[in-house]
Amino acid sequence: MTKNKKQNIALIGLGCVGSGFYALQEKNDAIDVKYIVVKDKTKKRNAPAELIRFEYDSVLADADIEVIVELIDDAEVALDIARKALNAGKDVVSANKKMIANHLPELLDLAKQKGRIFRFEAAVCGSIPILQTLNNYLNGLAIESVSGILNGSSNYILSKMHKESLSFDSALQLAQTLGFAETDPTLDIGGFDAASKLRILSAFAFGRALKAEEVIQAGITGVEYRDLHYARQRQLRLKSLAFANPTGLAYVLPAFVKAEHASYGVEQEYNIAVVESDELGTQSFVGKGAGSIPTGKAVLEDVIAVARGEAYQIQLKEEPNDLKGEIEIYFRFPSALPPEIEFVEQKEVFRSTLVNYVVGIVSTASLRKASEYLQKPGYFLAVFPESLQVDEPEISVESRVLSL
Amino acid sequence: MTKNKKQNIALIGLGCVGSGFYALQEKNDAIDVKYIVVKDKTKKRNAPAELIRFEYDSVLADADIEVIVELIDDAEVALDIARKALNAGKDVVSANKKMIANHLPELLDLAKQKGRIFRFEAAVCGSIPILQTLNNYLNGLAIESVSGILNGSSNYILSKMHKESLSFDSALQLAQTLGFAETDPTLDIGGFDAASKLRILSAFAFGRALKAEEVIQAGITGVEYRDLHYARQRQLRLKSLAFANPTGLAYVLPAFVKAEHASYGVEQEYNIAVVESDELGTQSFVGKGAGSIPTGKAVLEDVIAVARGEAYQIQLKEEPNDLKGEIEIYFRFPSALPPEIEFVEQKEVFRSTLVNYVVGIVSTASLRKASEYLQKPGYFLAVFPESLQVDEPEISVESRVLSL
Repeated sequence: MTKNKKQNIALIGLGCVGSGFYALQEKNDAIDVKYIVVKDKTKKRNAPAELIRFEYDSVLADADIEVIVELIDDAEVALDIARKALNAGKDVVSANKKMIANHLPELLDLAKQKGRIFRFEAAVCGSIPILQTLNNYLNGLAIESVSGILNGSSNYILSKMHKESLSFDSALQLAQTLGFAETDPTLDIGGFDAASKLRILSAFAFGRALKAEEVIQAGITGVEYRDLHYARQRQLRLKSLAFANPTGLAYVLPAFVKAEHASYGVEQEYNIAVVESDELGTQSFVGKGAGSIPTGKAVLEDVIAVARGEAYQIQLKEEPNDLKGEIEIYFRFPSALPPEIEFVEQKEVFRSTLVNYVVGIVSTASLRKASEYLQKPGYFLAVFPESLQVDEPEISVESRVLSL
Repeated sequence: MTKNKKQNIALIGLGCVGSGFYALQEKNDAIDVKYIVVKDKTKKRNAPAELIRFEYDSVLADADIEVIVELIDDAEVALDIARKALNAGKDVVSANKKMIANHLPELLDLAKQKGRIFRFEAAVCGSIPILQTLNNYLNGLAIESVSGILNGSSNYILSKMHKESLSFDSALQLAQTLGFAETDPTLDIGGFDAASKLRILSAFAFGRALKAEEVIQAGITGVEYRDLHYARQRQLRLKSLAFANPTGLAYVLPAFVKAEHASYGVEQEYNIAVVESDELGTQSFVGKGAGSIPTGKAVLEDVIAVARGEAYQIQLKEEPNDLKGEIEIYFRFPSALPPEIEFVEQKEVFRSTLVNYVVGIVSTASLRKASEYLQKPGYFLAVFPESLQVDEPEISVESRVLSL
């Protein structure tokens, strides 16, 4: 595309992210939004009525449209749009983390096959340009791990509980009132959203598109004042931490972090993405993970990158996941320690009529079993992320070609 | 440049950054280093002998060379190279912060006039891609401030003093032994390097190319155990903080920061760059600010950006600097408070035979006067960055066009 030609765009979805993108692109002369497809016919929209459409098939059939910006909530419909748009020879920008995490290999293949571009910066950490940074600046490095706080709602709740001693329920309610958490907060506080983002990060950092079941995942719903008390006494903070490494180990779990951990000072609704590499050491990126303008800005940047012809350079590979690592955990339980959680070493055992916990080393297999107890009342688990010891099966981080 | 043609490059300087860049580019098929210009004829080089040259004029005269990568220490010579290279119609990548800070308007103008590209990511915060992030991702935002820890040596020294109670001299010596500080550490610990980087950041964030004398600057040489003691008692940490805002206020000064400040947990040789904007809130970027590979990587990214035809989009403007702000400071002095440092309000006064200090609010004019005392024995100053109150003369942050 030449500098003088405008980019013809159809925007599908005009919710939080969509309206942020729409407002930002109005200042950009190179972008021309031709259609805005919405679902609800009755809602008043902050956009010209003549652009509004109520179904997307005819929009996808318009040969003048070059880029489809898909910003809807429903992952199934988003997938249908992405597939149809790429098949129709259009570039696609999306923000649907669940859809992307579940169908990344297929959609990247399809885009390649059709010679089109598929980008989705807004799907991971809103305002933090972590995907383009992994794709460009950090490309070709031997990345040892990606981790971080990938969910602003959970972090907001834990911050409020820690700093203001609110109960989980009060903190959640406050987050909902302020718009940091959805009315149905399961995807946020259950760690589902963070797991989707982690799977996308793993694809960029290691070429590993993780399946949902490969992520050891538990939310923060079980956290109680006594767990925060444990952390406070030891100058630790409780975070909902996502972590992945090139061996295929991946978790989204409550974590007790020390003051030296990059995520320690990241509070409220902020996110952090941390990249550890042999060459650059620790790099971290902190910013708002959600919000209309921050996320809309990420979408706008993708649209601009599409105009520049910049496709992601990631190459996915299939690798066996055969983990033999060990990690230290804190595990709280109501009466008896479940026998299938085997501690290699118990470092601290506390028993009382009110609360029981063990701190010690477990295998990643036991970690997974322990994580399943977080659904049940009376149980809680937190990892000590710095304690991770992985017998690495041989990290084959291929230096991806820095193509120009 | 097409995908199949290699980029012909001359590398001038093969020191710490130059050899990092040279090693990294060897894995990149699209780059062809034709010459390496060095000064010292006797040193053994980790590069093919047939590429080595000892003067740059003939290299600049070679019409085949498209990009000059200038990575030498001497700011005067670096300026000569940059001017001649741009005039000869070549793109230039540099890492010389002092040269760039002092001649930014001239060199950007010259590059524009010649239709060439001039980039210098490696001049600011080594491995942190802050210039390209300000240039691309954060472009067009109403940025309220840029700040951070822009010097790894100073931060390393303060970290060691704080955590291990080392004296300033022992910490400096350790930093020198480990290669984090130069043999002549004046540019680092005097705040000169950080001031150059801040002036470059101000140009990217606000279009304001600050003159050296516009930065209120003092190093960390005067810090004593008693100042760290003051900080420790109040759960503060001492950092060498660089700060600039759109009104033209700019300082590199010792600062007492709270646990909530983004720079609080940034220790050892790490750097942080923080961007505050109306739209995105606080964004911060943490990474190593120096080192052969981290800085060489920044140079490599610039070379790749040159191949893509990506020139910086910054537009500089001249604006009067008429500051009327106020800020809280801690000022330690041997016997009498210098009369020209006027406190609007004194919040804490401590007098003893050993140490005297005042904590209170001063105007930015008094702040500048106080900063000059840091050269003298017995004096120390630290700002409380969160206390800054600026009567903004009307921030005219023009939304720079997001050109494609």
